[in-house]
Amino acid sequence: MAKPWATFGVDLHLEPAGPGLRKGLTDALREAVRSGRLAPGTLLPSSRALAADLGIARNTVAEAYGALVAEGWLIARQGSGTRVAGRTVVPPAGAARHPRERSRPAFDLRPGSPDLASFPRDQWLKAARRALARAPHHALDYGDPRGRPELRAALAGYLARARGVRADPERIVVCAGFAHGLKLLGTVLRARGARTAAVESYGLDAHVRQLTTSGLHTPPLPFDRRGTDPGEPADADAVLLTPAHQFPMGVPLHRDRRAAVVDWARRTGGLVLEDDYDGEFRYDRQPVGALQGLDPDRVVYLGTASKSLAPGLRLAWAVLPPDLVEEVVAVKGGVDTCGTLDQLTLAEFLGSGAYDRHVRAARLRYRRRRDALAAALAARAPKARVTGIAAGLHVVVRLPPGTERPVVQAAHWQGLAVHGLSRYRHPEAVVEPVDALVVGYGTPPDHAWSGALDALCAVLPG
Amino acid sequence: MAKPWATFGVDLHLEPAGPGLRKGLTDALREAVRSGRLAPGTLLPSSRALAADLGIARNTVAEAYGALVAEGWLIARQGSGTRVAGRTVVPPAGAARHPRERSRPAFDLRPGSPDLASFPRDQWLKAARRALARAPHHALDYGDPRGRPELRAALAGYLARARGVRADPERIVVCAGFAHGLKLLGTVLRARGARTAAVESYGLDAHVRQLTTSGLHTPPLPFDRRGTDPGEPADADAVLLTPAHQFPMGVPLHRDRRAAVVDWARRTGGLVLEDDYDGEFRYDRQPVGALQGLDPDRVVYLGTASKSLAPGLRLAWAVLPPDLVEEVVAVKGGVDTCGTLDQLTLAEFLGSGAYDRHVRAARLRYRRRRDALAAALAARAPKARVTGIAAGLHVVVRLPPGTERPVVQAAHWQGLAVHGLSRYRHPEAVVEPVDALVVGYGTPPDHAWSGALDALCAVLPG
Repeated sequence: MAKPWATFGVDLHLEPAGPGLRKGLTDALREAVRSGRLAPGTLLPSSRALAADLGIARNTVAEAYGALVAEGWLIARQGSGTRVAGRTVVPPAGAARHPRERSRPAFDLRPGSPDLASFPRDQWLKAARRALARAPHHALDYGDPRGRPELRAALAGYLARARGVRADPERIVVCAGFAHGLKLLGTVLRARGARTAAVESYGLDAHVRQLTTSGLHTPPLPFDRRGTDPGEPADADAVLLTPAHQFPMGVPLHRDRRAAVVDWARRTGGLVLEDDYDGEFRYDRQPVGALQGLDPDRVVYLGTASKSLAPGLRLAWAVLPPDLVEEVVAVKGGVDTCGTLDQLTLAEFLGSGAYDRHVRAARLRYRRRRDALAAALAARAPKARVTGIAAGLHVVVRLPPGTERPVVQAAHWQGLAVHGLSRYRHPEAVVEPVDALVVGYGTPPDHAWSGALDALCAVLPG
Repeated sequence: MAKPWATFGVDLHLEPAGPGLRKGLTDALREAVRSGRLAPGTLLPSSRALAADLGIARNTVAEAYGALVAEGWLIARQGSGTRVAGRTVVPPAGAARHPRERSRPAFDLRPGSPDLASFPRDQWLKAARRALARAPHHALDYGDPRGRPELRAALAGYLARARGVRADPERIVVCAGFAHGLKLLGTVLRARGARTAAVESYGLDAHVRQLTTSGLHTPPLPFDRRGTDPGEPADADAVLLTPAHQFPMGVPLHRDRRAAVVDWARRTGGLVLEDDYDGEFRYDRQPVGALQGLDPDRVVYLGTASKSLAPGLRLAWAVLPPDLVEEVVAVKGGVDTCGTLDQLTLAEFLGSGAYDRHVRAARLRYRRRRDALAAALAARAPKARVTGIAAGLHVVVRLPPGTERPVVQAAHWQGLAVHGLSRYRHPEAVVEPVDALVVGYGTPPDHAWSGALDALCAVLPG
């Protein structure tokens, strides 16, 4: 046999070589370690277990292990078993042996992520424990493509209470993030024959791309001093909006325009996609409820745990008009795409009030940061001006004309990651291009916050 | 103002009505409860917290709460706060108020799911605690579309050790289940110009559909007494196989055919998609290593946690040839699509040996079930015959000609869910159609196992 794929016992796949049980086992193990197939640190089965599986004497296995420990391939420690020794491995050509992560800047004021250092790890684990203790076995099976019923029920209650959403658990679909939800909706719209989804003049390129890869045109809506003007998007089948807090410009959709865009959708059969990415974070007494409350048949509400908890959860939700549910589910595929345990945990987190407590604490922290940022700029960089309502996790800082690029470049040299406004401008937007930074104050952990603020002030025109 | 969307405090979105603070609050709360916007059981903010947020006297809030408790809308319990009372809600037209779950049969012997009652809940929670204690904050951020590096490293070690896979963490992509991975690969193949992915004569329709929705033709490969014959799939750009344990027929890919299909792929530039869905569960001394070990440049290895742990985790993995990684990542989208916490937990579970311990225990349990099933049929239904190797979570039970449909129907009437073989047969397959059941013995919890076995024997021809 050229390649005798025999297996020596418990999940240890070895090619034995040469005559003699002990030598064969020793050689096969050595080769597996040498080639890197058995990674450093890998725990081997006990000699007793391996011998039993192979139907050979325990001594034979113990001797093979002993020989390889003597040669330095394995390490045996009393009480912690036999492991593969650490050593320099020649990586396969063209591939690094261990996954790389992107290097991180010293200070990070890019928008998009919350303060991950304040993710409520203990509370989350407690909720996971309660949720798992309560879950029926079949909750761990393949599930409803809309997501776990416990989570959809909890979300319906929360969204109605906190955001004025007219929610029904049957019309909620849990997604692996906002972009996933948008991709599903883009696919459904295109399949229905839609050609155009108008987007805002400012926004995230990655979101627009979810729509364009579905084959939709994505022209920009006008943007003026009163914010986005959905007006009468003549040829659009849908519009994508951030009504509570325009991203990144930081203004709410004007009251008149809220009503107008819903009227447009009713009159034309168009659809409004409402991106309520940071609706929980408002720091004044003038919050804006969800646009969806005005007409749940024409507005899709999209929310996410990425800003309120952590992007790593990959949990978001769409509240759909009744006639869209079936098509979205069909595009999503036959089974749920999000892990059951996190869904059950979030349901428990919402139902127990832990979510509200976390959001309230976070709101206080972010509000203080925003105030500190505004105060620092006023004192140390008077030519820079904070704009937008007191809300969310980021702010647009207006700069003197012509300074955006050099400021971003200088920040980069200083180890401060910060984005210029221009990267959020739609390439076809008809707007006066202003110089500004989009400063995310959520990202730095507390210990790095004042350093990040200093670094920012240091690169702004004085 | 027609629709004054004012908010009364902590994440409680209400429309105040009429003059007078107390009456306004009372009316708005009542309306929110009456309409179902505030769901039964919802915990309201404490009167102190709500009063502070609104900047009104605590008494005003307490009086409003008191009035609604008196009216029966709210319930106040010492120490557990004020909640919305349970009551009959008129559901919105055309939608049930609470999510439904599909009804479950009394006994379930359909294949596809493991014994969920033996999911190691405690061990999983312990691993989650260790993983979360160790995770850096940035692990909770948007992540590498390939998945967490910790998990990819752990998988690379495990797959090399247990399945003979030539794995490199850089070439592993974590997916939300096998079907998700297959969909990504189908999309990439189609984008490369591929037209045809040959599939097996027996298999899961839902899997084939992942390929056809990408626009690929999916003709069946021949199937004979030696199992699937990949032969020389003349016009195919790819083949989808279950080499270790054909699903559902239960035979391994013949040794000669393993070599031949890899040769075909090398010669023609074709790709083999290896579905190793239950490779961990083999009950004899003749396990089959992964086909991918023969040529990692031409075979994509696909594994999953759905059989070894639980489908609800939505975790699977693809080990890709180097030249496919970038394209698969591009189709997957910019960010990871699986929850970070489950990925970190599985990495910890693998690294600590808990995964091996769980799989060994499960293997013993399933082996006993398979033996019990074979013994029961031999004793009580001698015309039925168990086929296939001793492996996996299901078995094909051959039946006398013409009896498959009536047996499945009789089982249904008895509350026993079981599948006939015909539902796994490719519509274009050129095979002698035999009568058989595909019996999954993983699904029933221990307490229901002997009952399920009795129910099965009762409907088989004696």
